[in-house]
Amino acid sequence: MAALRGGSVAACVLPLEVERKFLVPTPPDWLSSCRAQEIEQGYLAIEGDEVEVRLRRSGDDTYLTVKRGSGEQRTEVEVEVGAEQFAALWPLTAGRRLSKARHHVPTEGGDLEVDVYRGALEGLITAEIEFGPGDQPQSFEPPEWVGDELTGNPAYANQSLATQGVPADAPAQRAPRPDS
Amino acid sequence: MAALRGGSVAACVLPLEVERKFLVPTPPDWLSSCRAQEIEQGYLAIEGDEVEVRLRRSGDDTYLTVKRGSGEQRTEVEVEVGAEQFAALWPLTAGRRLSKARHHVPTEGGDLEVDVYRGALEGLITAEIEFGPGDQPQSFEPPEWVGDELTGNPAYANQSLATQGVPADAPAQRAPRPDS
Repeated sequence: MAALRGGSVAACVLPLEVERKFLVPTPPDWLSSCRAQEIEQGYLAIEGDEVEVRLRRSGDDTYLTVKRGSGEQRTEVEVEVGAEQFAALWPLTAGRRLSKARHHVPTEGGDLEVDVYRGALEGLITAEIEFGPGDQPQSFEPPEWVGDELTGNPAYANQSLATQGVPADAPAQRAPRPDS
Repeated sequence: MAALRGGSVAACVLPLEVERKFLVPTPPDWLSSCRAQEIEQGYLAIEGDEVEVRLRRSGDDTYLTVKRGSGEQRTEVEVEVGAEQFAALWPLTAGRRLSKARHHVPTEGGDLEVDVYRGALEGLITAEIEFGPGDQPQSFEPPEWVGDELTGNPAYANQSLATQGVPADAPAQRAPRPDS
């Protein structure tokens, strides 16, 4: 990982991510006690499957992330941007935003990031785990409160959720509570 | 024009551009004596006709520009980026770059920007003029060394030149000099 730092600017060429993603049909009671951060992100550009340019605010930190290519040819670069750069660019993400609370949940098999979506995506909760070069993603055993696997399902990619909303055929989504 | 400034960061929401563009078949002898700056630019994302995200270096200044929408709905935001942000993001523009020397040429009808393209686009020279709210673009009379009008021709948009090269049917392009 090549990291450049200087002043308030940090830029990283991120390693290729291998991750698995799951639906969380009903979150465990204790989830809200886990360390969490509010994340707001929007897409400046989505060029088919080839490129995405994303703005993200996580607490006081603001980033611009560019992903290009796919599979082994994928490159991802993240640069920290200043508050004014962020404020100027953010309006151009209108209509392609999402927000979520990301909870950090240690489990026996590894650390899960549990995203509780807000706003238009309210009700959707996913859990993700990232694997490094030496890890064996397929041997990960998710805890029992984790539901259907979403790995590789493009409808659950954040850029799809931001533009298309929750997929109509979402498996195991909680039905709205009936008025009674 | 809303301008935000702070530290080394400048961000502008640019006014809608009305401009006319022309081919320059043979540049005037005195062009090289005009004030000029070398410009290098590359595209991080080109999302159809809807969005482009461009990096530009002009001398020591480096910018990220995002254009979204078209016609009256078009928005353009430019933020100054630091040298390290630029260096981290620039590799992601591979295969979609161009460079040119932009000459500032005062004429009776207004100031022309004459772009002498470099590298793969060598031989192409264009002249552009921008008009403000009170101007009458159609009453502009180009000087006699200016050739065919390219206004609105998408093949001569810089993002097309960066990805597709000079159009095959370029009017009035100078033929390569025959070996003799």
